[in-house]
Amino acid sequence: MRTLAVVGGGVIGLGVAWRAAEAGWSVTLCDPAVGSGASWVAGGMLAPLSEGWPGEDRVLDFGAAALARWPEFAARIEAATGVAVLVADATLTVALDAADLADLRTVADWVGGRGHDLRLLDRAGVRALEPSLARTVRAGLHAPAEPAIDNRRLVAGLRQAAEAAGVRIRAERVDSLDALDHDQIVLAAGAASARLWPALPVRPVKGEILRLRQRPGVAPAPQRVIRARVHGRAVYLVPRADGIVVGATQYEAGFDTTVTVAGVRDLIADAEAIFPSIGEYELAEASAGARPGTPDNLPLLGRLTDRIIAATGHGRNGMLTMPLTVDAVLAQLAGTPLPEAEHADPQRFSTAHPPSLSSAGGVR
Amino acid sequence: MRTLAVVGGGVIGLGVAWRAAEAGWSVTLCDPAVGSGASWVAGGMLAPLSEGWPGEDRVLDFGAAALARWPEFAARIEAATGVAVLVADATLTVALDAADLADLRTVADWVGGRGHDLRLLDRAGVRALEPSLARTVRAGLHAPAEPAIDNRRLVAGLRQAAEAAGVRIRAERVDSLDALDHDQIVLAAGAASARLWPALPVRPVKGEILRLRQRPGVAPAPQRVIRARVHGRAVYLVPRADGIVVGATQYEAGFDTTVTVAGVRDLIADAEAIFPSIGEYELAEASAGARPGTPDNLPLLGRLTDRIIAATGHGRNGMLTMPLTVDAVLAQLAGTPLPEAEHADPQRFSTAHPPSLSSAGGVR
Repeated sequence: MRTLAVVGGGVIGLGVAWRAAEAGWSVTLCDPAVGSGASWVAGGMLAPLSEGWPGEDRVLDFGAAALARWPEFAARIEAATGVAVLVADATLTVALDAADLADLRTVADWVGGRGHDLRLLDRAGVRALEPSLARTVRAGLHAPAEPAIDNRRLVAGLRQAAEAAGVRIRAERVDSLDALDHDQIVLAAGAASARLWPALPVRPVKGEILRLRQRPGVAPAPQRVIRARVHGRAVYLVPRADGIVVGATQYEAGFDTTVTVAGVRDLIADAEAIFPSIGEYELAEASAGARPGTPDNLPLLGRLTDRIIAATGHGRNGMLTMPLTVDAVLAQLAGTPLPEAEHADPQRFSTAHPPSLSSAGGVR
Repeated sequence: MRTLAVVGGGVIGLGVAWRAAEAGWSVTLCDPAVGSGASWVAGGMLAPLSEGWPGEDRVLDFGAAALARWPEFAARIEAATGVAVLVADATLTVALDAADLADLRTVADWVGGRGHDLRLLDRAGVRALEPSLARTVRAGLHAPAEPAIDNRRLVAGLRQAAEAAGVRIRAERVDSLDALDHDQIVLAAGAASARLWPALPVRPVKGEILRLRQRPGVAPAPQRVIRARVHGRAVYLVPRADGIVVGATQYEAGFDTTVTVAGVRDLIADAEAIFPSIGEYELAEASAGARPGTPDNLPLLGRLTDRIIAATGHGRNGMLTMPLTVDAVLAQLAGTPLPEAEHADPQRFSTAHPPSLSSAGGVR
């Protein structure tokens, strides 16, 4: 039985470990605190279409391919563990002013022109879908196929599935990949991956997020994911069984994951601009994580050596792209790389090994 | 050896238990979670002078009498336990507009006229004391004798002192005072006291408070307690060794102690209006407590029966008035009530027992 080490216990590492164990590998997952990093802090939006923008073809295509794999993945998790991860079926991006509306039109035209289902709604159309939004919302972009998941249920479900499939979890920090003697290694350590493989162009992008709980007598959360831009800052509300997750700030702040007063202030103000009842919710938690950012907003997904596969750099979209990433890593382990992951080659930024050459060499 | 039960393990109950044990009582303190209520959430201001207002003579006198006992009490705690509780020496109330300034003048005239040391400062005077305050601060009222304490250090110190003095702490909820067979009982259960003695006019007044931690490179906290009124709401900043406590909202909300989004939003906005650097602080904690409020803002402090003494109703000033309360309860136990506590008679609202009559009767 061939041995696999998975370094990193976020949703990527857990998902790879689970599926690899099911595929017959002897899998060990190493993480000093499984599921406690960016995967725990995340919001759970799966919204590649609403986030599409002309020129970012590869990011859209990668995200859409990942989204297409989610229904099956969600069903598989639920079958294996009984854990239902979906918390919303659709996404509604709202416009507060004329500039926002122009942006929604741009997204609708470009993403819609590439065959995806996006619908522009006027004020009345938004109100019909989500009557609790602010009266100042003047238009919306409805993405009926963009759901959301509960990231914490997902972490719990993946861990349960992985353990049931025989994955051994070691609560240890890996300081060097050389110290691992497994046949194959998957590096899924998120923003910390560059500590283990310095050439990887992944950096921490700090994000703060709030978890709000509905109190008795207070207006219920919107049923869909609500996204907006307020004072130039992106904000989103993701439904939960007991409330709402509000995200997320974005800073280049190294590995600092303290929650700042200003971050919480901005999230509350921006969320309140689109859903006024939020003031009466309980502020149950404010937390921060480090997303693994890359220069082109595509992940770093593929072979680094004959023994090491990178699966990191998922930025704000680790939840969305996890099912595709897992499939891509499994395909690499089987020796037949997935076409959808082609542009995520982790060596694409290396001038010493341009992709067109390295794809033929042993390094890849 | 006479036995005493103290019901309630906030600073009042702990202080009474400690000093009674030292005075020779066999003391049992009952609280399912010692030090976890309003005493844990509090800010620690000791500011009866800055809060003075014409007509509220009794509240001022009671607070000033309590303040006068603090230096000795703080020294006594430190001698007994090594715990130093003071975190600031003085209080500065700032004015942002002409109405605020008029209020500061009213306080300065009235409280100053009663012999207390308060000094009005102009813009430059405020800046000289606390250069990090907002440029919009136009005047200040300096109370050089109003310090602040760290309420959590105080809770820890009092508990340590009580246990060292032989107090037995029972982690149990008391559901009826009749169930206690001690010679004397002190009811110090804060806002919950009316559950045990329904005639007590004490009600929960919800308050939310933030604990902020200074991050590297960020402006240090003011050295003094800073108080202000912003958009009509009172806000204060109390220094701590590692940051600032910001308080406090005030609601009539029953025993609800959830932290609301709106409460946190208002505290941040109001604090930022007087100390702009606060946005860069870490939001380490947001919590809520239930202050024990009374109709006239004086505590309920004195005999309910020959066996039961009330020590509750301290409202927002439990930290301030604790040393006086402890002395008053000890004086009651010794049979020689303190004159300073006269107006805090817990039966003063009872029409069936007006104070002038009941003071001669067995009920008092």
